Amino acid sequence: MPVITIRIGKGRPIETKRAAAQAITDAVVSTLGVRREWVTILFDEYDRENWATGGELHVDKFGPGFGAAGTETGASGRGSHEQ
Amino acid sequence: MPVITIRIGKGRPIETKRAAAQAITDAVVSTLGVRREWVTILFDEYDRENWATGGELHVDKFGPGFGAAGTETGASGRGSHEQ
Amino acid sequence: MPVITIRIGKGRPIETKRAAAQAITDAVVSTLGVRREWVTILFDEYDRENWATGGELHVDKFGPGFGAAGTETGASGRGSHEQ
Amino acid sequence: MPVITIRIGKGRPIETKRAAAQAITDAVVSTLGVRREWVTILFDEYDRENWATGGELHVDKFGPGFGAAGTETGASGRGSHEQ
Amino acid sequence: MPVITIRIGKGRPIETKRAAAQAITDAVVSTLGVRREWVTILFDEYDRENWATGGELHVDKFGPGFGAAGTETGASGRGSHEQ
Amino acid sequence: MPVITIRIGKGRPIETKRAAAQAITDAVVSTLGVRREWVTILFDEYDRENWATGGELHVDKFGPGFGAAGTETGASGRGSHEQ
Repeated sequence: MPVITIRIGKGRPIETKRAAAQAITDAVVSTLGVRREWVTILFDEYDRENWATGGELHVDKFGPGFGAAGTETGASGRGSHEQ
Repeated sequence: MPVITIRIGKGRPIETKRAAAQAITDAVVSTLGVRREWVTILFDEYDRENWATGGELHVDKFGPGFGAAGTETGASGRGSHEQ
Repeated sequence: MPVITIRIGKGRPIETKRAAAQAITDAVVSTLGVRREWVTILFDEYDRENWATGGELHVDKFGPGFGAAGTETGASGRGSHEQ
Repeated sequence: MPVITIRIGKGRPIETKRAAAQAITDAVVSTLGVRREWVTILFDEYDRENWATGGELHVDKFGPGFGAAGTETGASGRGSHEQ
Repeated sequence: MPVITIRIGKGRPIETKRAAAQAITDAVVSTLGVRREWVTILFDEYDRENWATGGELHVDKFGPGFGAAGTETGASGRGSHEQ
Repeated sequence: MPVITIRIGKGRPIETKRAAAQAITDAVVSTLGVRREWVTILFDEYDRENWATGGELHVDKFGPGFGAAGTETGASGRGSHEQ
């Protein structure tokens, strides 16, 4: 009966959450050996002014926008969300 | 920079945690579009006397042992961990 | 000085929270033997798109509405909130 | 499907947790209108050296023992646990 | 790589959060011996109807406003935020 | 009445926690404008096998020991704790 809390930056569309809930549940079920229906996932979304690393708010570090291209994953081309 | 907390029953071996950390990180990276090195995973392990569902402690519901065969996932054969 | 966090579906009226805070505090004081004024209760409310069980978002499972009659407690007649 | 986390001082016997899980679940079911079997309760126990109020560790404030008579609820006679 | 969660009453301006993130990170770095860039701080803001102490919601105890002068720190003159 | 949770690697001595509780409380009081006696700090300590970044357990990444010299803060000379 795992309870999984995922703290992320605010602003992802529902499709992203749907895919994440599915994929993370798959990963949990296959590695931890629990029943699928017992897995609970909770997304805790944070505004950039409520998240800081290195003593600096993300709104100051990255600007108010969310996922501006290339700011985060750079050359990996994987995308640009940062939180 | 997602921070992921996984509350589970105590007693899984390190191999299980290693596999879970890897698979869950994979799932997070591919669906949430974050850099791999930014994903933090924390396992919060609980004794069965510190976890209750339906008002009943798991130590009373399932006994003190962990993962006794068949108690949880039954016919699915997937294993028997329950928390 | 217990700190109690209650994760629930978003949308309950203040009267419900008032009653819950009171009843849960009563339960904590009488069973854990702590002073009433030391009990802290925090409600963490979740949108249905931020809560998943079995790999499925609750907004997909139960629809966007909150507490549609009968979906949850059924014959018990106790109500219909599900989160 | 409320998930309830109870942070308390370490050291309570299982009977106390059993009674607390029951009473808190009762309170949740009757006030929040959820099915009994969907209520999850998790006890997070803390050593006195991991809990501070007013900038002072509880081990320094109250001593290493747990629940020494009278230190907490005093004249109320309700007991003496403080966390 | 400490992850620090700060639960506070909703309504503080960004300047306050900026100063708090900085000062708390300073305190963590100098006392816990971790690299500055590894410190993560998350602010969890609560409405007054989602926070209760002594079984009473803060909206009932303190009113709906935030930080009405003198209600909290009184003579200390330090300000009046209460959560 | 802020409630502050600090997730760190297990193994720091009580003197370190005492200093951290004090310094963090100072930082909170001076920047958030709350009464000192209302600040609660909770240390959540994690074994290295319960903490992963980048999909890798810290026990695999850094070894089982805690704070081996130089692994973390290197030239900064600030110390060597990494979690």
